[in-house]
Amino acid sequence: MARRSLQPIYWDGDAVMIVDQRVLPHKDKVLRCTTPRQVIQAIKKMAIRGAPAVGIAGAMALALGAQSITAADPKTFRRKFVGLCDRVRAARPTGNNLGWAVEAVYSVAVENPDADVPTLQRLIREKSQQILEEDIAINRAIGRWGRQVIPKGARILTYCNAGALATGDYGTALGVIRAAFEADPTVHVTCCETRPFLQGSRLTAYELLHEGIPSTLITDNAAGSLMQQGKIDVVVVGADRIAANGDTANKIGTYTLAALARANGIPFYVAAPRSTIDPTIANGSAIPIEERDPKEVTHFNGRRVAPKEMAAHNPAFDVTPNKLITGIITEVGILKRPYRKNIRQALEQA
Amino acid sequence: MARRSLQPIYWDGDAVMIVDQRVLPHKDKVLRCTTPRQVIQAIKKMAIRGAPAVGIAGAMALALGAQSITAADPKTFRRKFVGLCDRVRAARPTGNNLGWAVEAVYSVAVENPDADVPTLQRLIREKSQQILEEDIAINRAIGRWGRQVIPKGARILTYCNAGALATGDYGTALGVIRAAFEADPTVHVTCCETRPFLQGSRLTAYELLHEGIPSTLITDNAAGSLMQQGKIDVVVVGADRIAANGDTANKIGTYTLAALARANGIPFYVAAPRSTIDPTIANGSAIPIEERDPKEVTHFNGRRVAPKEMAAHNPAFDVTPNKLITGIITEVGILKRPYRKNIRQALEQA
Repeated sequence: MARRSLQPIYWDGDAVMIVDQRVLPHKDKVLRCTTPRQVIQAIKKMAIRGAPAVGIAGAMALALGAQSITAADPKTFRRKFVGLCDRVRAARPTGNNLGWAVEAVYSVAVENPDADVPTLQRLIREKSQQILEEDIAINRAIGRWGRQVIPKGARILTYCNAGALATGDYGTALGVIRAAFEADPTVHVTCCETRPFLQGSRLTAYELLHEGIPSTLITDNAAGSLMQQGKIDVVVVGADRIAANGDTANKIGTYTLAALARANGIPFYVAAPRSTIDPTIANGSAIPIEERDPKEVTHFNGRRVAPKEMAAHNPAFDVTPNKLITGIITEVGILKRPYRKNIRQALEQA
Repeated sequence: MARRSLQPIYWDGDAVMIVDQRVLPHKDKVLRCTTPRQVIQAIKKMAIRGAPAVGIAGAMALALGAQSITAADPKTFRRKFVGLCDRVRAARPTGNNLGWAVEAVYSVAVENPDADVPTLQRLIREKSQQILEEDIAINRAIGRWGRQVIPKGARILTYCNAGALATGDYGTALGVIRAAFEADPTVHVTCCETRPFLQGSRLTAYELLHEGIPSTLITDNAAGSLMQQGKIDVVVVGADRIAANGDTANKIGTYTLAALARANGIPFYVAAPRSTIDPTIANGSAIPIEERDPKEVTHFNGRRVAPKEMAAHNPAFDVTPNKLITGIITEVGILKRPYRKNIRQALEQA
């Protein structure tokens, strides 16, 4: 299968097209969504995933919904739109970008108090496209900053998928890797499979092959051994929500890699747009952690692995404490300790 | 499926019966082996696995082979038997118990210089059964020592399968858990699925349910998060080879758990018979680490997960440095720092 672009979500006329990431890399299936409910389902069922991509999907769901609100007066339109915003925001709890995107789209309604309904509908749709396009530009900026911390010939370890498929395009952690590889084709990437959803072996591996970046797949369990043997120079991961103090929620298993990197003296970077930062949350303990269906652990491809009666626990994210993070690579630069101050300043920048 | 016993290997007349652990817990298939080659294949293909169980299988393979050596004079018999010992020993490289068991069986030939061939054949077969029976007694002793370090109501984390299925019966790490549960039914076990071969979700989960021990299955990636949240009191794992200084090779991912336990102030115990200790290896760096087929990482149940061109690295074991190990639970007691001295003394005991 060869797609020219890895863009996971885009407008096609009045429909939102979502690449179904549950069947990648083996099937090239694109979901045509014409209602917000279809997009919300695609988010919940992880046809689209990755905090920035989910934010974009949320914005587009709002545009689809705005289009179908039949109110003639702006006041009724706004009331109905607020209800829609709540439903979209609730699709997945941990990633910050969904709530951020909903706020950004909602602000269009607030900032245009005199606009009539057709104008609001047009502005909301334009805003959703703008969020997509800005996300791509942001990722390229993250790549430019991030490549500066990747040594020549570095053996980079990444986790889950923080690539084009997790964003508008290009990726955050994988954006850093793309930019590093552009400047230095001798880098090598170790890609963790990322249980239970296997975003690493299915999606990141696919993106790495697509770009021709030299890479090797491992089970998540082999990462510690490679670090211990001095075979990893730097770790770069994405983020789902970053607290005001830099504590970072990301795919379950990220904290483990950060702890291993620390134990072995390896720098550990988080790459994320500022829209992933939640300044209302003081530290990681207050980040809501999504618990997903235990079947993701007990089953594989619809087939049971564990015995029938076995109970399973399936938290989708964990929190890496700021003290284990060497730097947070954003579109406005690499944030370092003291995180609280530097994060606040980064959010204040234009 | 309900088996009365979990014993993974036993004699049935002149055949060695091996429970095929590749299809557990869903199918109850027992391989009937009448040649050493069949047993060696069962070891290589992981129909039987777990260092002590592989040791027992090796001993039984030698007994099968001895039976079929047609030499009339003991000298020719011995020469052929040495060649067989070499083939059995080479079946899997990392676990120490296989080589130990081969030596133990071979010593029968050495210690009975005047025996004729039929006598040697009988003595070798008896030795293989003795190794099985002693392993079970050893595991019960490990359980009795080990339960002393399990606090009342402990939330225990274990990894891979170091249970009945990995030994003659009862288990090493799972033997400690069985003994702890017998004394205190309020313990709870968190069982890591153990990628790539899923010994945790398939085999340990099966054993825990079989015993009625309260337990929960997680992906390996969730272990760090549970430890970080104070939800694990103690970690107990098995071992494949322990160096003279206590460095321990065990299933890939074990080092990660040890590093996480250390970072979170949680005791980390290794449970193993003395036959797992290799006094000829000074430290972990000299332990041979088996690299297995990359398909165990790229495929699942024979179905491809990763893209076709993706390279994978699949080390089957890693090495946990002695400094991360709180104690090594053996049949003669719990060995602690200084490991080199205490291991030497333990090996000198009767």
